[in-house]
Amino acid sequence: MITLFGSLASGNVHKVQLILRFINQPFLRVEVSQAKGETKRPELLKLNPMGKFPVLLLESGDVLSESNAILFYFAKDTRLWPDDTRTQTEVLRWLFFEQYSHEPTLAVIRHLSRYVKDPHKYTKHIQSLKPKARHALLVLEQQLQSHLWLASDRCTVADYALYPYTRTANESGFNLADYPAIEKWLSQVEAQPNFLPMGVEGAQNVQGFYEYFQGNRP
Amino acid sequence: MITLFGSLASGNVHKVQLILRFINQPFLRVEVSQAKGETKRPELLKLNPMGKFPVLLLESGDVLSESNAILFYFAKDTRLWPDDTRTQTEVLRWLFFEQYSHEPTLAVIRHLSRYVKDPHKYTKHIQSLKPKARHALLVLEQQLQSHLWLASDRCTVADYALYPYTRTANESGFNLADYPAIEKWLSQVEAQPNFLPMGVEGAQNVQGFYEYFQGNRP
Repeated sequence: MITLFGSLASGNVHKVQLILRFINQPFLRVEVSQAKGETKRPELLKLNPMGKFPVLLLESGDVLSESNAILFYFAKDTRLWPDDTRTQTEVLRWLFFEQYSHEPTLAVIRHLSRYVKDPHKYTKHIQSLKPKARHALLVLEQQLQSHLWLASDRCTVADYALYPYTRTANESGFNLADYPAIEKWLSQVEAQPNFLPMGVEGAQNVQGFYEYFQGNRP
Repeated sequence: MITLFGSLASGNVHKVQLILRFINQPFLRVEVSQAKGETKRPELLKLNPMGKFPVLLLESGDVLSESNAILFYFAKDTRLWPDDTRTQTEVLRWLFFEQYSHEPTLAVIRHLSRYVKDPHKYTKHIQSLKPKARHALLVLEQQLQSHLWLASDRCTVADYALYPYTRTANESGFNLADYPAIEKWLSQVEAQPNFLPMGVEGAQNVQGFYEYFQGNRP
């Protein structure tokens, strides 16, 4: 069975859940806790030397990493990946925006506010990220005021990539009610077939890190 | 004529020069100086609300942005973009790695060390980025010790994307002699047809920002 390594709290991991559910692909999820130091374990660095999550192990033994590359891999033959080069370029433009301007601000603020031992230590860093995160939300809001979807006149994998850390913007200190076009678009993504809300388990089976790596596979 | 907005000092802008040269596409470059505040000018935000460079204006009036999406657009029908989905996914994996882990460390250190008024103000920030930049170089070195090119057995657009800020790693405080596989790979990229070294002008014509926007086009 396809195995997804990562934590449910991660929006990058959630993207992979969303696309696997969209194509009706069952998978096993192995919990990887950053707080417990599991993200730095050699078992995982062997699978992905880049040291990032999610990591996806295919049944062939092949390994995929980088959440947006994984989205592309599974979306390629679906309606979420457009046919023409120009629209594909627009999808990729939003995927790169997500990884450079959106995730490193919104996701990092959320992480430092909620998932670290002493959030007070990061107050200054969080404050420095806030204007950049606000800019990322404003770029989305502006685009969605005049477009139904981000990269095309239809839903694409770009909408899936931008969904998780936009949906959790309130956990990053923003009020989504201030961004009405974004709120409408979030509802549209949530109305897609087999949609799974952030934080909800999409896997057929779940294993703990040590349970999995000690060979006790289902 | 295709118009490229951006500074020659930028590796992201250089990527676009590299791919336009590769396909023998002449272009005009309009200089955009961050130091002079030109990157924040409304003329450019109208072209690219994301507020990033390079920005590429096609003859049709269509606008492309995000350097790696621009690379994809022009590489799609060349040998730099592989045919099969799995290898395409690998190319994208390296492009996302570049935008998330490589550029925000190596390029930012270089910028704060060389292109700001008072680099001493950023000493602490630079020091915090150093281990991440070193990790990015080690990921490249490890991959290139066992692979001729980053994403495939042939040169792809991933090699072009990772080239600029790896070539300038010495300006980010690293010694490329410590990374022999990277050094060999840099030479391979430099041996590609129509290659242009970092910092060298590839445009047929160059205009200053105000010269261009005051309507004085060639």
